[in-house]
Formats: sequence, C-alpha cells, structure tokens
Amino acid sequence: PSRPQKAAPIENRLPCSLEDLYKGTTKKMKISREIADMSGRTMPVEEILTIDIKPGWKKGTKITFPEKGNEAPNVIPADIVFVVDEKPHDVFTREGNDLITTRKISLLEALTGYTVQLTTLDGRNLTIPINAIIHPGYEEVVPKEGMPIPKDPSKKGNLRIKFNIKFPTRLTAEQKTGLKRLLAP
Amino acid sequence: PSRPQKAAPIENRLPCSLEDLYKGTTKKMKISREIADMSGRTMPVEEILTIDIKPGWKKGTKITFPEKGNEAPNVIPADIVFVVDEKPHDVFTREGNDLITTRKISLLEALTGYTVQLTTLDGRNLTIPINAIIHPGYEEVVPKEGMPIPKDPSKKGNLRIKFNIKFPTRLTAEQKTGLKRLLAP
Repeated sequence: PSRPQKAAPIENRLPCSLEDLYKGTTKKMKISREIADMSGRTMPVEEILTIDIKPGWKKGTKITFPEKGNEAPNVIPADIVFVVDEKPHDVFTREGNDLITTRKISLLEALTGYTVQLTTLDGRNLTIPINAIIHPGYEEVVPKEGMPIPKDPSKKGNLRIKFNIKFPTRLTAEQKTGLKRLLAP
Repeated sequence: PSRPQKAAPIENRLPCSLEDLYKGTTKKMKISREIADMSGRTMPVEEILTIDIKPGWKKGTKITFPEKGNEAPNVIPADIVFVVDEKPHDVFTREGNDLITTRKISLLEALTGYTVQLTTLDGRNLTIPINAIIHPGYEEVVPKEGMPIPKDPSKKGNLRIKFNIKFPTRLTAEQKTGLKRLLAP
C-alpha cells in the first residue's frame, strides 16, 4: 500500500470587523466534515472550531486547524485554514497600525476652528479641538489611538484625522469684496 | 568555423526635453567604434548617427541602429540602441498624452478669481481666466494643449492645470469674526 497523501489545505475567509480586530474576540465556526471509523466507513459530523482573535491582528493572518478536513481511507485529512479579512468600516480605515478617518468640514470651519468628536472602536468618546488653520492636506495625528500592536497590545498606532474642506460653490460680488478686504496681504 | 554570433545590443539613454518631444527635433549622436578590414585588422572610427525625434514620442521609445557596434573577426557587430528618456521640466509633467502643471495660488485668489498665464512648450502665451471657485482638487482642463499624439500629430492631449491653494497660517480674531459674518450659511 502506498504512503497516504495529505489533501491540499482548505482556506476559508474569516471576515472581522475593525472593532473585533481592535478589541480581540473569540469566534466559533461550525464546520461539517466526514470522519472515518476503523473499517473505513465514513459518517458526517459537525464540529465547532474556536478562533481566538488577538487585538491588532491584520488582514491575511492565517489560523490553521491541522487535519480537520474530511477523513477517508488512505488519505491524511486536509488542514482547515481561516484567513482574517477586514470588513469595511463606516468611519475608520486602517493603514498598518494607524487608523485614518476623514472629516468633511466647511471652509469656514477650516479657517475659524473645528472640534472633532468621535467614538473610538472600543466605544470611548474623544473630543479633539483643532486650533490651527486646517489647510488642504492637514492631518491631525492623535498618538496611541490607532490599532493595538499584536506583539505588545499595550502599544498602539496613531489615529490620523484628515479633512475634506468643502468650498462654497458660489460667492456674491459683495462676499468677494468682503473677502478681499479681510484677507488681502 | 562556427557560425558568427551576434553581440548583445548596446543601449544608451537619449535624454530629451519636453520641448524636443513636443515639437520633434533631430539629434546627431557621435559614436566611436572599431571597424575591421578584410584581413581582420581593426581600427577606431567616429561616426555620426542621426535620430529623428517625432512629435509626441514617449519615454522608452527605442531607436535601433543595426550592427553599429564594434566589428571584430567572427562576430556580427552589436546593434546600437537609443532609449528616449524625458528630462524633468520646470513647469510641466507628462501623463500619457496630457501635460500637467500646478499653480500655487492664495486662498483669496481661489475664492475671488484667478487667471492662469503660461507659455506653451512651443513658446505661445496662453491666458486662461478661471471664473469658478477653485476648490482643493479643482482641475482646469484645456483641450488640445497637451502633447501631440505620435500616430496623428495634428491631434493633441489635454493640458490639465492643478492648484495648490495656500491657506493663511494665522488669522486674527477680527478676521475670523469677519469671515463668519461673510461665509455663514
């Protein structure tokens, strides 16, 4: 009899919210597989696989359950592999360990002052007053409000707040005259 | 005797200004090479290779002079290849057939009106008044003022004018109050 061959690993996507990846969580995945008895007869069973998502895990992280594929005579069952995928988030995008959020503000807010109010991925409310003038490309960096770093979850990346400045679409002649008076060098 | 082998082609960069690539030009390149007589004796000579740059040629265009490398017994001389490279330009960058230029303007100019004055690659002066409010990301497209299209040099790409809006770095309390009065919704 030839040496048993191992079946190719079976990959499954494991969609995780940014909240899950920020806080960490436990996911239980139900799988259906065939198991074989000594005589080689197979029967279907359901099993629960428990996956412990660690804070800061990134898209592409693989969790392998060795030989949890179907059993059959003369075959080593396949590994079952889950690959972390990141669900899109309404407020934040991730760049490495940093979180990015973009605020749409008016030109007037950009020039006269704006306060960012936001809720973190673990539900805290932050208030970040910005005193500088917000020019196009301005980025407010809030240290340690990014994603946890998996090797040391007490450390965190940065939160970077970007701004989309909405200009008025039209101005009257009077407004233009007023602006020239106010902003002329 | 074995069949003569051909030497590997010799590539040279051919740096061209955007003006050259816009208008087309003729470049004369002096090369030094060895030529062999019937007896196999070699002697150095200088030759002038003439390259006819066509309007609209792109970076990477190759011009091949077959077998203009060194002659030697039992070898087919190498091809001499020139590869068009684009020299950086002070005013324009190229994206395919389009030309891009970026103007640094003040916030006041962005809001109250700005006229672009520029000199084309063939030396014409253009005046382009912009009546709209220039917001971040605004792009003024001037049709047919881009690069010629090599297959049909009577056609041209677009000129795209981008703007870098310089915001004031500080405003007084009076200026902010004035802006609120002028721009409040």
